[in-house]
Amino acid sequence: MLRPLLKKQLQTERRPSWKLTQRVVEMAASASGEATRIMLAVNESTIKGYPHASISCRGAFEWILKKIIRSNTCDFKLLFIHVQVPDEDGFDDMDSKFASPDDFKKMKHRDKIRGLHLLEYFVNQCHEIGVACEAWVKKGDAKEIICLEAKRVQPDFLVLGSRGLGPFQKVFVGTVSEFCVKHADCPVISIKRNADQIPQDPVDD
Amino acid sequence: MLRPLLKKQLQTERRPSWKLTQRVVEMAASASGEATRIMLAVNESTIKGYPHASISCRGAFEWILKKIIRSNTCDFKLLFIHVQVPDEDGFDDMDSKFASPDDFKKMKHRDKIRGLHLLEYFVNQCHEIGVACEAWVKKGDAKEIICLEAKRVQPDFLVLGSRGLGPFQKVFVGTVSEFCVKHADCPVISIKRNADQIPQDPVDD
Repeated sequence: MLRPLLKKQLQTERRPSWKLTQRVVEMAASASGEATRIMLAVNESTIKGYPHASISCRGAFEWILKKIIRSNTCDFKLLFIHVQVPDEDGFDDMDSKFASPDDFKKMKHRDKIRGLHLLEYFVNQCHEIGVACEAWVKKGDAKEIICLEAKRVQPDFLVLGSRGLGPFQKVFVGTVSEFCVKHADCPVISIKRNADQIPQDPVDD
Repeated sequence: MLRPLLKKQLQTERRPSWKLTQRVVEMAASASGEATRIMLAVNESTIKGYPHASISCRGAFEWILKKIIRSNTCDFKLLFIHVQVPDEDGFDDMDSKFASPDDFKKMKHRDKIRGLHLLEYFVNQCHEIGVACEAWVKKGDAKEIICLEAKRVQPDFLVLGSRGLGPFQKVFVGTVSEFCVKHADCPVISIKRNADQIPQDPVDD
């Protein structure tokens, strides 16, 4: 009942695929020259008064170290991007008074410092572990800037921390990771927070 | 203009984060014990007469070797799953005649052989390179079985080859990767075919 074409196919499948294997081995060998460039989008925690990186992006960073880089620190380079979003709900500046142009300068200066501290945290960690890295800040809409930067920088893949919100919560807060999975030029992997790291309000991060 | 809380925040941010760093270093050290388990869904080429794995899943396999495992072959384990889908369009059996129950047995036997050959290809490659692996076959709807198996096996992440179809093409063929990105329990990364590997009809693979 086997069609002749299929029979031939099964026979040819049995030949040793040494050519392909050879190619993969060569490829693996040649890969050792150039580091795998992993881009990680990092952001601040939305929990007021919380001084550090968000739960999700710290989780994604630790996931990269533990699951991808492991002991092979020389073969990877991490590219941290932090997109500063204009304070949409205005909560951060609710208690501030703006009486002169200088007040706005101070606010911008403060934002800059916060962004730099965030990157400093990740760069310090990489330095301690011995992983090469680069970090930079951009301003604008996070999801769009991340995709634009991925296009410009061309990492091997992009890692995003995600809050793992349900469909109902997503309607209100939107998700950067869903947008980037769809629109980024490079492969994207989205790492959800661990269940034990979810704050009282899952929208917080 | 800076609120007291914020001032305190900036000050505390300046303290050395040795505790966190220590945790990351310890984590990286402890990770070396247990291999990172990467699940890869593999399928046959849809191009008639083509004897091997699909362009997309070979691309995804090579991507894992080149970009993730690199020279660190001991720290990873690959889990290959092949889901055999009932021949929906019936093209494969268009020229076959079924005259007795044995004919169906032969067809099933043929499918089994094809599935085993597919897995043999990947297991051989891993064996040559020195990466630990496991491979198995399941039957059913690819996207659902992949998600079920990911839930059962709990890999660290799931890699899927994708044809990178446009929205118009997707309407007709559906995409396993989109479904799994949304529904799988573990992180998922979808690797598109290279532009130079796209066959005449992009729906082919």
